[in-house]
Amino acid sequence: MTNHADLDPYIAVHHYGLGDLLHEQARSRPHMIAAIDGEHRFTYAQFDERVNRLAGVLRARGVGHGDRVLWLGQNSMRVMEALLASARVGAIFCPANWRASVPEIAAMLDDFDPKVTFWQHEEIGAGNREARGGWKPDSHWICHDGCDGEDSYEALLAAADPESEFAPVDTGTPLLAIYTAAFSGRPGAALLSHESLLIMAWLALQSQKIDEHSGYLVSGPMFHIGVLMGTLGTFLAGGRNAFVPRVEAENLLRMIEAERLTHAFVPQPTVVQMREVNKDGAYDVTSLFADNQMSDWKIPMVMPVDAPAIQKMGGYGQTEIGGLTSVLWMGGQGAGRAVPFVAFKIGDEDGNEVPRGQTGEIFARGPIVMCGYWNRPEENARRVVNGWHRTNDLGKRLEDGSLVFVGPKTTMIKTGIENVYPAEVEACLRQHPAVADVCVIGVPDPKWDQNVKAVVIARDGVAVDATALIDHCRDRMASYKKPKIIDFVATLPRNAHGFVDRAAVDAAFGGGGYPSVG
Amino acid sequence: MTNHADLDPYIAVHHYGLGDLLHEQARSRPHMIAAIDGEHRFTYAQFDERVNRLAGVLRARGVGHGDRVLWLGQNSMRVMEALLASARVGAIFCPANWRASVPEIAAMLDDFDPKVTFWQHEEIGAGNREARGGWKPDSHWICHDGCDGEDSYEALLAAADPESEFAPVDTGTPLLAIYTAAFSGRPGAALLSHESLLIMAWLALQSQKIDEHSGYLVSGPMFHIGVLMGTLGTFLAGGRNAFVPRVEAENLLRMIEAERLTHAFVPQPTVVQMREVNKDGAYDVTSLFADNQMSDWKIPMVMPVDAPAIQKMGGYGQTEIGGLTSVLWMGGQGAGRAVPFVAFKIGDEDGNEVPRGQTGEIFARGPIVMCGYWNRPEENARRVVNGWHRTNDLGKRLEDGSLVFVGPKTTMIKTGIENVYPAEVEACLRQHPAVADVCVIGVPDPKWDQNVKAVVIARDGVAVDATALIDHCRDRMASYKKPKIIDFVATLPRNAHGFVDRAAVDAAFGGGGYPSVG
Repeated sequence: MTNHADLDPYIAVHHYGLGDLLHEQARSRPHMIAAIDGEHRFTYAQFDERVNRLAGVLRARGVGHGDRVLWLGQNSMRVMEALLASARVGAIFCPANWRASVPEIAAMLDDFDPKVTFWQHEEIGAGNREARGGWKPDSHWICHDGCDGEDSYEALLAAADPESEFAPVDTGTPLLAIYTAAFSGRPGAALLSHESLLIMAWLALQSQKIDEHSGYLVSGPMFHIGVLMGTLGTFLAGGRNAFVPRVEAENLLRMIEAERLTHAFVPQPTVVQMREVNKDGAYDVTSLFADNQMSDWKIPMVMPVDAPAIQKMGGYGQTEIGGLTSVLWMGGQGAGRAVPFVAFKIGDEDGNEVPRGQTGEIFARGPIVMCGYWNRPEENARRVVNGWHRTNDLGKRLEDGSLVFVGPKTTMIKTGIENVYPAEVEACLRQHPAVADVCVIGVPDPKWDQNVKAVVIARDGVAVDATALIDHCRDRMASYKKPKIIDFVATLPRNAHGFVDRAAVDAAFGGGGYPSVG
Repeated sequence: MTNHADLDPYIAVHHYGLGDLLHEQARSRPHMIAAIDGEHRFTYAQFDERVNRLAGVLRARGVGHGDRVLWLGQNSMRVMEALLASARVGAIFCPANWRASVPEIAAMLDDFDPKVTFWQHEEIGAGNREARGGWKPDSHWICHDGCDGEDSYEALLAAADPESEFAPVDTGTPLLAIYTAAFSGRPGAALLSHESLLIMAWLALQSQKIDEHSGYLVSGPMFHIGVLMGTLGTFLAGGRNAFVPRVEAENLLRMIEAERLTHAFVPQPTVVQMREVNKDGAYDVTSLFADNQMSDWKIPMVMPVDAPAIQKMGGYGQTEIGGLTSVLWMGGQGAGRAVPFVAFKIGDEDGNEVPRGQTGEIFARGPIVMCGYWNRPEENARRVVNGWHRTNDLGKRLEDGSLVFVGPKTTMIKTGIENVYPAEVEACLRQHPAVADVCVIGVPDPKWDQNVKAVVIARDGVAVDATALIDHCRDRMASYKKPKIIDFVATLPRNAHGFVDRAAVDAAFGGGGYPSVG
């Protein structure tokens, strides 16, 4: 911190983690409701005591600084308790995807190596038991929803010491692990620090207009950064988090009405179901929506219509940089401008800044950025360049300095010594009036390593040929980036989310020979 | 940060200081105006280059991590430049009170021991020269406003290298030094870190509703934490800071009209002058006030009427904890509740928490709290108790957890082994309908060290005697706290700000024998 020894006493004063925030809420809002889950309604003072007891349970099992705690279960107020108890003892907490298959859970156990695993008996117990059976026997397993005769959550809590003193945790300590999209064939767990989560919480509080009277319906999965932001923002504001184990239209309607909830995460298919169930207006959900038919609903994140994040929607982010951290509500156009505590740089492969207007990789720095991936030393070393985190995403600055997200860098094409990013070429081709959709791939070439090839769906009734599209690109970008080959097709293969499936396009149209980008 | 060496590359990514914020503003808002001062109007890109050059000037004079830089001058955009240049090189910057006397400046030089001092030639040059003459000759002095033939600010900037690479600075590094009220007979400089200033900036941005289109009139002194918050909040939002060297009604009116300023710090006497000058409405100041007569003006901090800090005004704070950090706009009553990144505890002399409702000392922790006082090792050791900063202020929690500020602890009375705080006894006496005002002092006593004495102004027409007031206190607080002696008076001696002058009350009514509280 400083080279002046006489300031040393103050280093400890600055340690402030999510555990300290919970203590503060228990002191400053002792009687306000912190968590609602089924029949449970706990005030901040009660919630604080439960978390202290759970932290004691973890500590008694040897969980300390840097140890891992895994959650294999659906949403529950106990996810939040386990996160905060991990915070108290300095451990790293991972809420796993509860839809994971047995082999996926097994891989996660091997990778994350948790000292304590919270697991769920109902609905997903069979898979949890099978994965547990195949794993090493010396880890502690705690069943969070019953399971008489085993270590059961509520029994352990009741027996635990409500001791509230824990060693302070540096704000930079990793706390939350979220497994994200594969960067090298297998998912990696991005580690977010106490500080990162506190900044994310503050961003949610401000941008979603959350205050101590707000109630958040935690109906999305808590391993999703968007849901976590809302939950943590509500926790920071001193509001109520209402947990439901899974998305079920009638249950959500009942919860919204009973608790007069003001914020939520509700995916579109669920809203359609809710409209159907509530077509006679049996439930009053006007605390959350404009009317009982949810007519004003647009996106999964539901919040007051005058909230900054709704007024000026859009931005750029990834889990690794704490979610959406360049946003339109801070100004500008495109993906807007940086939120507090983060800086962006558009750089080349070596991290050198490129001129404004030029596409390059997005680099980020600041305390909101992750602490690295768990158990991935080589990837961590590769992803930091001169003090900046490499996002593996492409972007540029507009003339006014706004950030623009161009696309993922993952499928880089190598042609001669040049790097070509499909997303950039696709963005250029999409500007042509004849192009309805496009996927750009690299095809192996003995001389150039790869050639750039565009697989194009032409717009109905617009005449175009390959030369016209190639010329279009040549006029707008460096010549080596333009496609050499263009195939016209009627459809492109897509994945379950509706996105073009690049691997399938490669397989069908001769793609291959990509350089390794880690 | 962590005990996992494979996360080490990411430690550098989290270093983020005010210098990084300036770089980000130059990238994301290159053409927007950052600073206005007289004829000068600099964009963020230009401001960034000027700061880089100034940082180069500091570096060339050997200023590095932990070294001190002093500002002896009035307000200027150059104060902000010197702050940010100090941030780049990891130094500590102090904007001194420009009304300080020569002996006060001399004491500050001895205490702060700056490696570089920026000084002002116009208006206050004589005092600066005299203080300089008496000080050691080997320090660098830079005249910021002219002074041909000396090291002059603009000449040095023009000649400097616009190099933009500086070693990253940990967010916990002290950056700003502000001399605050004496705690032990002489003023001490509270050191605020980069992180503390960034949090303060964010608090201002949110609570004063500052965005990138805002313009802040920096018309209060920059060594005042309230002015700094507005200036830094505007800088964080990417808005315009408009600097004026001193408060002059016509100049302020002109600046507000010309720049359509939206936020300001304007003391009441200045508003009275502005009303007089603008009685014919010559200047349009409606960007800032409801009308050209400033009819809606109430407090020195001027901001949009729908800003949270105006809608719910009030709170508790001190420079040492980053200004107002318990605020009504976060909820509650009294002094409200904690802002993000701070926790409060009401404790006894040893820092043990006292029950809700009981008066004790306010303790604070979190990264917004200062890093200690410069050059005060004993005071720093005394002010940290078990990881908490001792505010020297008294407070309590209401039943709903809200914080209440009771009063300063500085004039503690010692009676037997008990500590009695005048502010607490005064608060109790003020609840009595017969008490219009009161000052509680300690009078020497051979047996008890001191006795508690109340000097009371009785409310007109309400009959009361000493016994009734003593009984009133006995019913409401520990018996040792009640006054033993009560003097009824017509007036109490007051200082220039209208506050009761405790030293004068002591002198007039036999006070003395106070224990040392450091």
